[in-house]
Amino acid sequence: MIKKIINTFSEEDKGYMGYALRLAEGAKGKTFPNPAVGAVVVKKGKVVGKGATDVCGKDHAEKKALKEAREHAQGATLYITLEPCNHYGRTPPCTHDIIDAGVKRVVVALKDPNPLVNGKGIRFLRRNKVDVSIGLLRKEASELNEDFFWSVAHNTPWISLKLALTFDGKIADVYGDSKWITNKKARTFVHDIRRRHAAVAIGSGTLEKDNPQLSVRYVKGKSPVRFVFSSKNVFQGNTHFRKDANKIRSIIVLSSGKKGQKKTDPSGIELWYTGTKKTPRNLFTFMDMAYKEGLTSILVEGGQQLASTFLEYKLVNRLYLFYGNRLLGRGIDGFSFSKGLRIKKSIHLIDTKTYCFDDNIMITGIPSWK
Amino acid sequence: MIKKIINTFSEEDKGYMGYALRLAEGAKGKTFPNPAVGAVVVKKGKVVGKGATDVCGKDHAEKKALKEAREHAQGATLYITLEPCNHYGRTPPCTHDIIDAGVKRVVVALKDPNPLVNGKGIRFLRRNKVDVSIGLLRKEASELNEDFFWSVAHNTPWISLKLALTFDGKIADVYGDSKWITNKKARTFVHDIRRRHAAVAIGSGTLEKDNPQLSVRYVKGKSPVRFVFSSKNVFQGNTHFRKDANKIRSIIVLSSGKKGQKKTDPSGIELWYTGTKKTPRNLFTFMDMAYKEGLTSILVEGGQQLASTFLEYKLVNRLYLFYGNRLLGRGIDGFSFSKGLRIKKSIHLIDTKTYCFDDNIMITGIPSWK
Repeated sequence: MIKKIINTFSEEDKGYMGYALRLAEGAKGKTFPNPAVGAVVVKKGKVVGKGATDVCGKDHAEKKALKEAREHAQGATLYITLEPCNHYGRTPPCTHDIIDAGVKRVVVALKDPNPLVNGKGIRFLRRNKVDVSIGLLRKEASELNEDFFWSVAHNTPWISLKLALTFDGKIADVYGDSKWITNKKARTFVHDIRRRHAAVAIGSGTLEKDNPQLSVRYVKGKSPVRFVFSSKNVFQGNTHFRKDANKIRSIIVLSSGKKGQKKTDPSGIELWYTGTKKTPRNLFTFMDMAYKEGLTSILVEGGQQLASTFLEYKLVNRLYLFYGNRLLGRGIDGFSFSKGLRIKKSIHLIDTKTYCFDDNIMITGIPSWK
Repeated sequence: MIKKIINTFSEEDKGYMGYALRLAEGAKGKTFPNPAVGAVVVKKGKVVGKGATDVCGKDHAEKKALKEAREHAQGATLYITLEPCNHYGRTPPCTHDIIDAGVKRVVVALKDPNPLVNGKGIRFLRRNKVDVSIGLLRKEASELNEDFFWSVAHNTPWISLKLALTFDGKIADVYGDSKWITNKKARTFVHDIRRRHAAVAIGSGTLEKDNPQLSVRYVKGKSPVRFVFSSKNVFQGNTHFRKDANKIRSIIVLSSGKKGQKKTDPSGIELWYTGTKKTPRNLFTFMDMAYKEGLTSILVEGGQQLASTFLEYKLVNRLYLFYGNRLLGRGIDGFSFSKGLRIKKSIHLIDTKTYCFDDNIMITGIPSWK
């Protein structure tokens, strides 16, 4: 049993763990279906090794950091944003490397809730005389991989929903035009949110109206897989979606065919069939298919219908609401539920954070239902 | 001619002017149709007198401060948030008092744009050997009395518009219920906005649905005059509006009768007739009548129709948009213009400021039209 220990951490500890977190932040989006992890090896007040998780199957963060540290890892402290694994997965267990390297102390931000790990890594290290402290910057480390933890626990993708609204709550003017409601800084942040997700999803109306690229361009990072929801496969136009299908994995989710069926069309676009127009059953099938492919976090980017469906059926794990400095007086609503909620039964966001991009605002939080 | 002087102000100067501004802030709402002004007399690093504008016709801020300072005003510095008057109005000119008291230096935040003053006060002081500096905390002083300056320049009331919206831009659920979209802290701030205005205005739908008190209760301050816009005088119910009409001046604005006509009904409610249902003509008549009664700033608090009309006809000088932590999915829009604007022609807010009240947000700014 792990003893209940009140850990106290120095400012130095916090600094190194903060560094490890930044390394993990940088890796976020590249590691699916694995969590993004950062690790720093410190010896006598000097960083002698650092690493972050890479694409799935490559060395874990701590292994990279130890390799970089070489013989300096002997007697060093290892800061790591997630409990090291103790099992043979796609890579051998990291705990063995830590012990072999002679690391004296390990500071872990967070226990890995993955049932394959969950305390086993920490126990193994302690049994091998490594001094282990847990819980430094736990909240930050937890939020960084919130999608992973949720997905592992529920066997379904984490769903984020992002909308860009005017101050009066519209996602487009009466003509359907939405370019641009928010400013460049806000849209740059959207690209950063995108690169943290395994996939993005839009409805066919948004594809036809906006012809979005759905790629990561304004920040460094990997473009996520692209989903378009549609009742039929009609996108023969010269859309970015079709043109870039050979560069970015692109999937049309169709509410027809046989449940779970997959095809690829000549342009390289995949077709996924949910086999039903019934909501939310088609969404569950879609989420199941995505999860099985390791697409464990999906950013829904609208339009109204797709956003409303995911939210009304309580499938949204995190909301990102951007407000651009505009008032339209009338336009297309961000949401249009089949049934409006009463004030007392309204959705509210917990753990909210507010960001300002000059005169644009973004609020994010976890939706909660009464 | 006033010489162009580059004024430099010390940190001490800023501190005293800040104090004068706080005094003015406290008076805001009590001084209509006069601006709210604060004054501080400082001698040898000590505040020897202070004052703020009182109800119309009473001593001005600087006069009060000088009275409090008595003989200590001799050789002192007077900090004042607005240029002192040099004319006989409801009170004799303050410049005379300043000279008589032997004040050595006057620091003024802002020239008074009122054509009756506008530099005359400063010139008179300089001609009488008083050292005058202008422009310390000018922006703050200007914003504090933005309603006054605008009203004086345009001979019409300053119109503020406040709405409390859900994160998805609704002012009420589908049943019309709006209690409460925002939290107590946000609502308290609304009371502070109210007390700064000469009057508040709502539509008859809001009166019937919400039965609001429209008074200042959560903060210290004077309750503003209350306007209800209606097509007919039908409010016979036991509303707060009717019950409190003997305590707070309460006016029903009717789109009937003879233009400019006024009556008082037995319960003490005044009836103002605009003589037309045509918008914006009825609004112009109303604003004209209000201005003539010294009601130089009016806070419109909804509902949808009244808010939309004022904004669509470009009659709004400042917007206060509160966002409560709620999502309804469907409900009553904050605005419903007769014609929605295009993205490129949308209203945007300039000089925006954002406030957070826990997980509620308020954004305020000056609407600007393309």
